[in-house]
Amino acid sequence: MAASLELQTPQQHSSSPVSTASSAISMEGTVLCSANHAPLTPISFLERTALVYPDRLAIVASDGSAGGVARTWRETRARCLRLAAALTGRLGVQRHDVVAVFAQNIPAVCELHFGVPMAGAVICTLNSRLDAAMAAVLLRHSEAKVVFVDRALLGVAQKALVLVAEAGARRPVLVLISELLDDEPSLASDAKIKVTRVDYEYEHLLSAAAAGSSPDFAIRWPADENEPIALNYTSGTTSRPKGVIYSHRGAYLSSLAAVIVNAMAETPVYLWTVPMFHCNGWCLVWGVAAQGGTNVCVRRVTAAAIFDSVARHGVTHMGGAPTVLSMIVNATAEEQRPMALLAPGGRRRVTVMTGGAPPPPQVLFRMEEHGFLVIHSYGLTETYGPATVCTWKPEWDALPAAERAQIKSRQGLHHVGLEAADVKDPATMRSVPADGRTVGEVMLRGNTVMSGYYKDGGATAEALAGGWLRSGDLAVREEDGYIKILDRSKDIIISGGENISTVEVEAVLFGHPAVEEAAVVGRPDEYWGETPCAFVKLRGGGGGATAAEELMAFCRARLPRYMAPRTVVVVEEELPKTATGKVQKVALRERAKAMGSLPAAASSSSRRAPTGTAGSGRSKL
Amino acid sequence: MAASLELQTPQQHSSSPVSTASSAISMEGTVLCSANHAPLTPISFLERTALVYPDRLAIVASDGSAGGVARTWRETRARCLRLAAALTGRLGVQRHDVVAVFAQNIPAVCELHFGVPMAGAVICTLNSRLDAAMAAVLLRHSEAKVVFVDRALLGVAQKALVLVAEAGARRPVLVLISELLDDEPSLASDAKIKVTRVDYEYEHLLSAAAAGSSPDFAIRWPADENEPIALNYTSGTTSRPKGVIYSHRGAYLSSLAAVIVNAMAETPVYLWTVPMFHCNGWCLVWGVAAQGGTNVCVRRVTAAAIFDSVARHGVTHMGGAPTVLSMIVNATAEEQRPMALLAPGGRRRVTVMTGGAPPPPQVLFRMEEHGFLVIHSYGLTETYGPATVCTWKPEWDALPAAERAQIKSRQGLHHVGLEAADVKDPATMRSVPADGRTVGEVMLRGNTVMSGYYKDGGATAEALAGGWLRSGDLAVREEDGYIKILDRSKDIIISGGENISTVEVEAVLFGHPAVEEAAVVGRPDEYWGETPCAFVKLRGGGGGATAAEELMAFCRARLPRYMAPRTVVVVEEELPKTATGKVQKVALRERAKAMGSLPAAASSSSRRAPTGTAGSGRSKL
Repeated sequence: MAASLELQTPQQHSSSPVSTASSAISMEGTVLCSANHAPLTPISFLERTALVYPDRLAIVASDGSAGGVARTWRETRARCLRLAAALTGRLGVQRHDVVAVFAQNIPAVCELHFGVPMAGAVICTLNSRLDAAMAAVLLRHSEAKVVFVDRALLGVAQKALVLVAEAGARRPVLVLISELLDDEPSLASDAKIKVTRVDYEYEHLLSAAAAGSSPDFAIRWPADENEPIALNYTSGTTSRPKGVIYSHRGAYLSSLAAVIVNAMAETPVYLWTVPMFHCNGWCLVWGVAAQGGTNVCVRRVTAAAIFDSVARHGVTHMGGAPTVLSMIVNATAEEQRPMALLAPGGRRRVTVMTGGAPPPPQVLFRMEEHGFLVIHSYGLTETYGPATVCTWKPEWDALPAAERAQIKSRQGLHHVGLEAADVKDPATMRSVPADGRTVGEVMLRGNTVMSGYYKDGGATAEALAGGWLRSGDLAVREEDGYIKILDRSKDIIISGGENISTVEVEAVLFGHPAVEEAAVVGRPDEYWGETPCAFVKLRGGGGGATAAEELMAFCRARLPRYMAPRTVVVVEEELPKTATGKVQKVALRERAKAMGSLPAAASSSSRRAPTGTAGSGRSKL
Repeated sequence: MAASLELQTPQQHSSSPVSTASSAISMEGTVLCSANHAPLTPISFLERTALVYPDRLAIVASDGSAGGVARTWRETRARCLRLAAALTGRLGVQRHDVVAVFAQNIPAVCELHFGVPMAGAVICTLNSRLDAAMAAVLLRHSEAKVVFVDRALLGVAQKALVLVAEAGARRPVLVLISELLDDEPSLASDAKIKVTRVDYEYEHLLSAAAAGSSPDFAIRWPADENEPIALNYTSGTTSRPKGVIYSHRGAYLSSLAAVIVNAMAETPVYLWTVPMFHCNGWCLVWGVAAQGGTNVCVRRVTAAAIFDSVARHGVTHMGGAPTVLSMIVNATAEEQRPMALLAPGGRRRVTVMTGGAPPPPQVLFRMEEHGFLVIHSYGLTETYGPATVCTWKPEWDALPAAERAQIKSRQGLHHVGLEAADVKDPATMRSVPADGRTVGEVMLRGNTVMSGYYKDGGATAEALAGGWLRSGDLAVREEDGYIKILDRSKDIIISGGENISTVEVEAVLFGHPAVEEAAVVGRPDEYWGETPCAFVKLRGGGGGATAAEELMAFCRARLPRYMAPRTVVVVEEELPKTATGKVQKVALRERAKAMGSLPAAASSSSRRAPTGTAGSGRSKL
């Protein structure tokens, strides 16, 4: 254990003689030195956990036995140091260079979250569902010096690098992560991988660094905690990528807030159903390390994988967009394993943080029945993931299920790591009253708000104008102060001068037992400007005009007339989604537009005597 | 709830236009502005909790019904703002002025922990057991502008102010906190209080501030998070008081670390058995607010008060020196209420953090039997309270009780808020090997180390020399990396050139079923220089020479000969203790010295054929 004593700690200030701090901020006798001041950084989490929990599992993948990955925190730290040594040595990475990662949720991505910052560099995890063209755009925009590529994505990455080179930009060094999981064919037998275009292989790089005669790599601690640690591209357009910059300070504080909000006691077991490329896994790649937890990696998020992981590894926490929740509640009897069976006494509960969209009430009910505790949070890439949480109060436990679901579907209030979440009139910057009616824009402020958009001072200034991050989400404040989001400002439907929250219409649709997926967008309407158009997937497929008619009637019975969809399209395939499980409303809006405007006569009359326009209900996406 | 929208947030940076951060630390596009940077301060905890949990109980005292105190977070915030308004207005307190508090654990002290920093001032909680002379010294040294005085301590405070004035120093303004608890006689009937020497009364001050026509007080947020928030005097000498300065940043980070280390989920119920004047209640006055918890105040810490509070208020967490633990395990059958009876199903557990001295194994066993979960931590006033924690590992659960107690009696490793805890040779600053044998000094480093000693740059430089806080505690590192403290460097006994850890000798004494209290110090010895001298209180009193002989034999059978006490003094009263429950070894050392040196002949021979020197065993303290 002598090695444990060599753990490193940051030293921002000279250690001797101690320097006296500015008298303006201090009382006589105050000093700032390395004894009492260290830049906040998630690197410290790994250093401490490797000392406290050296033998505890840090990362497992597959079943953790033959062929699978099962590494302790001691091993993980050693590998991260080797990775940092390879980056700064062989790969010549300098401070603040961008190192890209293009991978699914595999063990190496956990390591890269520490190894890259330890090299003083900035980790940029790319969405694993990018196509080559978009990946090329982001690699160029980020000016990544190195890109670590999951073997499952090598083909796309190689195409992207060709595009980068064709555009005359510097081609990043490609490091292939070829580590196998149990259920994968071996690399050697995979003829599709053109290894000739691979510069390095991950494990070889680490082995070479270990074989070097030099002692432990000296961590490049940030000199200032506001230095960048990560770059996260939002799902922007190819013409103007938005690269959100995270600082070491923000990442540290956001990680601790995530630990507290998720009620993560020591040594949690975290199942990676949230993509690690998404806000650095809502900062939990770092947060799990802070608590000496175990990361359970799965390539494919399926109901079976979730229930299996809970059974095998004793998962305590996970997260995901409502799609992941739907996956759990719609699991077949074969896939499901009631939590009560997994833990004698039925006490085990898995805490699931959800976000991205409000979970439909039906989904919440069924999650509870399955033994999952759902925490509803809301956030943006610009807030390091979760920014608000619908903090649950004990007095709500006794309410009827429908009311509980209603309460929990709200976005709530800012977590402990943020200073404020407010709903404001974006023009006057005045807070809206807590009346549940007055609509404003959600605005956020605090240490877990991004440093800015990379190379886009204009967009940064716009987003942070007035001293608040403007979310672009429209919301009200309910009487208990909790924030309830109505819609993205760009998603709101304006029909005859009335604002319609597509989220509210969707919530009603989800209340219909046959509905599995639903999304509402505006469709051009000659009379009303636009009217709600719903795209719906039914349980077990099927549909047609009858189903569409029934759903329209269902909504009219439960919503003000002007809010009920005037078009319902029943589709047989899944709705198009982003990598993080959000429905791509842009695609649906284009589809609604392509249907053409609803004629004025039909529309204006149907507000009184609705007949529906279910003709398009047979369309497929 | 419109009021909730007026909660304040700090604005360190100009809000518009956004300023570009230094390019040395940032990527292009980075800005630092009030949207993404706020000074870390515990004030934010109150602001957020008053919004999220406005109706939840913040502070209760006594039974919370007639005459008792029971205030919500909404009320508490309003009162803290009024307090800050009164401080800055009527009392003329300026930024960084010191505001002293001389009180037991009463509700007002919780409020002062927020109200004083909201006024931009520094809270200085004085030990409630100080006598007038020492209180006067600290009031002068701190230059307190105001002192808030608990009615229970008014007599002492008034004497102290007379002494301050006699010394020619400026007399602080005295604010009497006359709030009654259920079990106290009314103020009016208390003839001993000379209200004429009271400048203000706490409740009157608050009411007057509320009656003012001005809107809500504008919080004086720290402009820099390294500004001071608290001043805590250690139990130093009168000639050179040591006032430890805490910063807003350190207090914020220490509070979150305390929440995490105590595994405090949302809305904990915290029983104040730790004095709030001690390291600001180990930073939990702020930490409990961060989690929307309830503070349960009791004036007198007794077994009955503890069990009653658990039963009445559903206490989830508490803390205390080993004396508090002894109180629980030595409670009479009448005082005790088994946890299983308090919560149907027997699931309730109270988490108790202990520190100050390693809890004796017997005490740990019995705490577990009573349904208390003990977390053993170690820290100093200079580390905002707890710095290390003996993090428990599941694999230890199956070990025999004695072994578990042995493991838990160690100090462990630094918590998540600190960068490092190490054991070093103070001369070379080299880390000792993790061999369980090599002795070094515990040294600490990180953001939760003090800013310095007030007005004592020399002592500050000495304490932080070399970039580490030197604790003065001698320890070894065991093979699993955990730190085990042997003794305070000043308490170690050097006998014939051998170092003797008094803590180890005491642990053996506590293993004897008849021993209730034990403390070991060095006694001058003509032959060996000094030899161990034990002061022991037996269960149920009694003792005498026979008991002393038996205890010496008991120790000789369990310790190397040179470590066994050569003098055992059985006392009938409690050992003298500091306000935080630590035995005052200084007093015992003087007592041992007063006994005179052990004669050389008796001593040298008795290492071979011990006869004991139990003659002094009848002495009383």
